[in-house]
Amino acid sequence: MSGSAPAQFTADDYRARMERAARSAADAGLAGLLVAPGPDLVWLTGYAPTAATERLTLLVLAPGREPALVVPALEAPDAEKAAGASALTLHAWTDGADPYTVPRTVLDPDGRFGISDNAWAMHLLGLQKALPDTSYAALTDALPMLRAVKDAAELELLAAAGAAADAAFEEIRKAPFAGRRETDLGRDLADLLLRFGHSQVDFTIVGSGPNGANPHHEVGDRVIRRGDMVVLDFGGLKDGYGSDTTRTVHVGEPTDEERRVHDVVRAAQEAGFRAVRPGAACQDVDRAARAVIEDAGYGEYFIHRTGHGIGVTTHEPPYMIEGEELPLVPGMCFSVEPGIYLPGRFGVRIEDIVTVTEDGGRRLNDTTREMVIVE
Amino acid sequence: MSGSAPAQFTADDYRARMERAARSAADAGLAGLLVAPGPDLVWLTGYAPTAATERLTLLVLAPGREPALVVPALEAPDAEKAAGASALTLHAWTDGADPYTVPRTVLDPDGRFGISDNAWAMHLLGLQKALPDTSYAALTDALPMLRAVKDAAELELLAAAGAAADAAFEEIRKAPFAGRRETDLGRDLADLLLRFGHSQVDFTIVGSGPNGANPHHEVGDRVIRRGDMVVLDFGGLKDGYGSDTTRTVHVGEPTDEERRVHDVVRAAQEAGFRAVRPGAACQDVDRAARAVIEDAGYGEYFIHRTGHGIGVTTHEPPYMIEGEELPLVPGMCFSVEPGIYLPGRFGVRIEDIVTVTEDGGRRLNDTTREMVIVE
Repeated sequence: MSGSAPAQFTADDYRARMERAARSAADAGLAGLLVAPGPDLVWLTGYAPTAATERLTLLVLAPGREPALVVPALEAPDAEKAAGASALTLHAWTDGADPYTVPRTVLDPDGRFGISDNAWAMHLLGLQKALPDTSYAALTDALPMLRAVKDAAELELLAAAGAAADAAFEEIRKAPFAGRRETDLGRDLADLLLRFGHSQVDFTIVGSGPNGANPHHEVGDRVIRRGDMVVLDFGGLKDGYGSDTTRTVHVGEPTDEERRVHDVVRAAQEAGFRAVRPGAACQDVDRAARAVIEDAGYGEYFIHRTGHGIGVTTHEPPYMIEGEELPLVPGMCFSVEPGIYLPGRFGVRIEDIVTVTEDGGRRLNDTTREMVIVE
Repeated sequence: MSGSAPAQFTADDYRARMERAARSAADAGLAGLLVAPGPDLVWLTGYAPTAATERLTLLVLAPGREPALVVPALEAPDAEKAAGASALTLHAWTDGADPYTVPRTVLDPDGRFGISDNAWAMHLLGLQKALPDTSYAALTDALPMLRAVKDAAELELLAAAGAAADAAFEEIRKAPFAGRRETDLGRDLADLLLRFGHSQVDFTIVGSGPNGANPHHEVGDRVIRRGDMVVLDFGGLKDGYGSDTTRTVHVGEPTDEERRVHDVVRAAQEAGFRAVRPGAACQDVDRAARAVIEDAGYGEYFIHRTGHGIGVTTHEPPYMIEGEELPLVPGMCFSVEPGIYLPGRFGVRIEDIVTVTEDGGRRLNDTTREMVIVE
């Protein structure tokens, strides 16, 4: 479940987003968009059902038509309370009825539609059966930029979420690390994110020693020791917008090799950040960061893409990856997070959220990128 | 995210479940099953990725073939740790590769497949494009009984979850209600579920006075008063299996009408329970409960189906609803939860989880169904 919508957006904001989305769909050759519960729906309407279920909830957007929200009758009272509700028409359906007949009345019966990536397969199959002449494209493939460019109010919320995550790092670095379990520090990080205003914690990665060499390790029972590198990667939602930052700290004095690896990652992160400017391609950010790590001889140990977008989720397009030629546009927001992972030994990752400005990039995380020594 | 798998199931248990699922698929005329992260995957393999994402994770089951799990390379180490991992072959794919080419190597290229209801639409579209001659059915439509019949170990876990929820009710009924907000009692219920061994709280509905007349109301700011009916409906996962029970209490002495409505719902719940036996249809349980409410003149105020299945989720097939002709089979587990909702006034719902035995039904909730008077 994604968090509820922030209070500051009005029905007019949501109406404007829905109109923009319908226009973008038309520009992309689509007859409309079908939006399922999740981040797309929150962003377009302010409505977040308690849970996505087998009961169909679907926003139908088509150029020149009134937006229509198909909802289970039991959930209609909740949908009516959403901030964007007055900008759309509710179509409630009752248990036992065939919900796919409702979109049929508001859809072009032989159009091509964008559908939310995370719409349930059973609902897509229901639509394909009820409307056999329609065709579909995943929203991220058809309109990857739909939510990618943030407006000023959204950037302010993302900056506030980043500042809260930074405050959590400033606190956790004062804590003792040696002798405590990763799970303990993970819980502390979660508590700090909540204390600094997050409503939802999405992840708290504490990768100590060899665990840091697995970029998808979250937290484990391992007791942190003097001499460990520790990757701290954490984030969540504050007022409906995401944070995501990584710093790698060292317990006590690092070795020369540990310093060297950390320096390489820091230089790579800086290079990735400096590649951010309007008109550059997403892959240019990845290439800039990767080149630094490859030149230092660690190329084979940088085993993931350099970044991902962030907004009403902590993980969304655009992706900073080789082959992604989408141009950067002012207002886009994404992570720049290169890393080096030495299997069985340790890992280093440094991550800031960066937004594209008129002439470059601006970081939304501001804690030191020097290696922090903890106790 | 559904909870992680309970510790007591072994690779042999998962192998048996996967074989049974593949056989059921063949019996239903399917070439195989495509299983996405979520309850189906947990139940079949014990594997629960941290989150379902745009990166494809998919279990491919086909009769006579080794089960194959397509996973993002970064998540392969986690997948290898799943209890069922040794019963399947991992097919890891790396960022940038086309993951839909992997199922192509293990799938019948013109077969019809069952796919998890909650698989992402983008993944179904990817499969439809990579394998244009395949066709798909939602798993719940194709194999509604896949997880419906529980074995002895599963029933034991469901009974333990039910007993824990009952213990939470026995505690909450001792608490003062009048003068406290619904949100306070909701938090207490969540704490009690956790205290009695739940790892995850899925819902805590506290519907006082008129809020009780909205079956989808969760908790609100309303301060509970003397004279209120209060619907308490709560549950979650304990050791990977679900609880879900409802009792309606009254703050102080009820009126004659409140007693009458509660009596009708109690009689309806009893009638629904007594209709449970092997060979009866799901809709018979709904009809039996509904008849009591209709005969008492409240038919128009019973506005939802009578029940839903429960297992590794708190909400799954089979559904006790008019039109559902699936026969009940020993080991099935579902809620029996009729209600009467008087708009603007109050609601009453009584819910037990019931399992089908060889000759009838057995309740997994055992707190009194008489109206409890609270302070």
